[in-house]
Amino acid sequence: MKGLKGACMFGQSGGPTSVINSSAAGVFIEALAQENITAVYGAAHGIRGILHEEFYDISKEDPNELELLKYTPSSALGSVRYKLKDVGVDDTDYKRLLEVFRKYNIRYFFYNGGNDSMDTCNKISKYMKVSGWDCNVIGVPKTIDNDLFGTDHCPGYASAAKYIATTLMELNLDAKVYDTGMVAVIEIMGRNAGWLTAAAALAGVKGLGADLIYLPETPFELDKFLNDVKEVCKNNGNKCIVVVSEGIKNKEGKYVGEFAASATDLFGHAQLGGIASILASAIKIELGIKTRAIEFSLMQRCGAHLASKTDVEEAFLAGEAAVKFACDGETDKMVIFKCDRSNGYKCEYVLMPLELAANTEKKVPSEWIINNGTGLSQEFIDYALPLIQGDAKAPLEDGLPRFAKLKKVLATK
Amino acid sequence: MKGLKGACMFGQSGGPTSVINSSAAGVFIEALAQENITAVYGAAHGIRGILHEEFYDISKEDPNELELLKYTPSSALGSVRYKLKDVGVDDTDYKRLLEVFRKYNIRYFFYNGGNDSMDTCNKISKYMKVSGWDCNVIGVPKTIDNDLFGTDHCPGYASAAKYIATTLMELNLDAKVYDTGMVAVIEIMGRNAGWLTAAAALAGVKGLGADLIYLPETPFELDKFLNDVKEVCKNNGNKCIVVVSEGIKNKEGKYVGEFAASATDLFGHAQLGGIASILASAIKIELGIKTRAIEFSLMQRCGAHLASKTDVEEAFLAGEAAVKFACDGETDKMVIFKCDRSNGYKCEYVLMPLELAANTEKKVPSEWIINNGTGLSQEFIDYALPLIQGDAKAPLEDGLPRFAKLKKVLATK
Repeated sequence: MKGLKGACMFGQSGGPTSVINSSAAGVFIEALAQENITAVYGAAHGIRGILHEEFYDISKEDPNELELLKYTPSSALGSVRYKLKDVGVDDTDYKRLLEVFRKYNIRYFFYNGGNDSMDTCNKISKYMKVSGWDCNVIGVPKTIDNDLFGTDHCPGYASAAKYIATTLMELNLDAKVYDTGMVAVIEIMGRNAGWLTAAAALAGVKGLGADLIYLPETPFELDKFLNDVKEVCKNNGNKCIVVVSEGIKNKEGKYVGEFAASATDLFGHAQLGGIASILASAIKIELGIKTRAIEFSLMQRCGAHLASKTDVEEAFLAGEAAVKFACDGETDKMVIFKCDRSNGYKCEYVLMPLELAANTEKKVPSEWIINNGTGLSQEFIDYALPLIQGDAKAPLEDGLPRFAKLKKVLATK
Repeated sequence: MKGLKGACMFGQSGGPTSVINSSAAGVFIEALAQENITAVYGAAHGIRGILHEEFYDISKEDPNELELLKYTPSSALGSVRYKLKDVGVDDTDYKRLLEVFRKYNIRYFFYNGGNDSMDTCNKISKYMKVSGWDCNVIGVPKTIDNDLFGTDHCPGYASAAKYIATTLMELNLDAKVYDTGMVAVIEIMGRNAGWLTAAAALAGVKGLGADLIYLPETPFELDKFLNDVKEVCKNNGNKCIVVVSEGIKNKEGKYVGEFAASATDLFGHAQLGGIASILASAIKIELGIKTRAIEFSLMQRCGAHLASKTDVEEAFLAGEAAVKFACDGETDKMVIFKCDRSNGYKCEYVLMPLELAANTEKKVPSEWIINNGTGLSQEFIDYALPLIQGDAKAPLEDGLPRFAKLKKVLATK
């Protein structure tokens, strides 16, 4: 509904990224400038902060600090993993949300997250509508996994991809420094979609990539894997760089950690390490080559010092666009990216119904996975390379990043 | 000896760093400009390349690529871990080295490395002297471990320290993002000296450091450790960030991986993971708190995208100074850093006899380790903070670092 006058609420949800706060900056700066928005609130730990009436009054923040949010990783407001029950099963949370929305006259609601968070956003949107509470609800996409349906890509993905590609280039140089053999097995995040793992192929553009890349989209076979490594080593002085997704599974859909334990007695004990450790150990035992298991762990999603400028800007503009759309009367939608790569790279911000975004996963197209399941095609490079362009990071202070410091003044109850 | 006319040989040795190639650039650019130096060679894989007559003719390289070496991590010439036997035990290698030095008229020899490499450099220097082969030999320091005796600090340390402090700041924000508890255990390199692990304290200057830091200098007790974590968690909603050196040992000098296995049956099986995994698992089992084990692995020593400008420049100047000293007739010495922090930060390049550098380790002073073995004093911060100032990294190409590409033209035999 257009011309609504009232407060706006913004929440961050799910695993953080290097640029989720850039979207927050986009929402906050635009919302503070909108005439019809009477107050701007940031929820502490997403939906949970609203349920507990814990949210911050963003008008109390220093504009310079809001600007620094663009370069500050993780979720500055605090995040949450909270799945709303179906309203037919239990409507307690919904009633409480409506109560809070009424109390603070919340007429604009923005939720920033991935699949699950868009499900939450969708449920709230629908409930407010049937309850007759006019509130414009817009979802802002976010996930390093890049698996949201309908959008060309997701804010957060590109910076994680840039971290992975840059770090892999450095590791490539380091891992091959001696004149003796070594197989490095590098584990990348992504339980179901291989977008992040595929980013390893970007390092290959500079000649410093991986020899073998395994995505969760392709069923994983330990014997074939060991043979692939053996082949690379044969022609390469036992030097090989392998990149694997944490989500690789066998044909039956079992994760490597599960099936490796039963497939071979090499793994007949509890595993503390991740998939990289398991595979490195298999290579060492079966092929007798020195190995090193490396996990990019949380660093890949919070490495804001390596953020993509394109990503930082798009994340900001996605937040800004969400507020503008809502003020124009749009509701029940998510901001998506429509990109044109035919003549340079252009990105437009458009809308899609929220229910389409909720709970659907976009995977790497199977035709982009080549070399018998161990590499990525030029189509992937053409898709991903424009997204990692440019540097944008926090200014240095004492030689270290100067991240945003929010006052976090709680809204008066 | 001054006025020597002849070729110069340079080699890289030991574990690489983010800036070891910056020292190579310093040696090469200065040597190419020196009148008395008739040829400039870079040994493939250090001493092994000399023994096998595999070295590159640096005059064939593009000057722009030599400049890019400053920002290119790892050892561009290839590194080696090769310990020369004592000449009294076996002089085969020495005789061969002398043969090669004579064949190519090598009158200047520069070796870039840590303790072991300075031992090699020292042995070669002494052998050339007793053999009557005039050759000016200068060691160039290098090690992320910062444990070389006699020098204020070592090239390579600062960039690794900056990587550790910056990444820890980002992880601090990420690890505390949910409203549920989590203990992150982060493992840092350094088998005997805790300088790298201590760098975690630099993140504390920005309020985003670790709650507990454990160096190898202090004997490690599992019970005390678990109690320390428990105390932090009690006052902190079960949120705690622990940084541990891979080299922590108990009072008997046993590494944690060894004594943990016998100390408790929690660890009664082979470990694939490192110390972080072992300790995270102990916390989970003993304290029942969610944990995450993170290793900075090779990334901390090759993360050139986060190099310290101060370090890049000093590494270059150390290489340049080595050549200048040698051309002035100095020999049998290592370049060391003499620093003055009394009024800003100044660094001078001076010489020290090679035998003093060989095989001695410099540890973190015990009086700098505070808080019952879990923190670092202001003295450490004052020491280390000037070293990590400024950014210096490779130019971007396709959104990724453009590292040096050497032609590596082998010298004609």
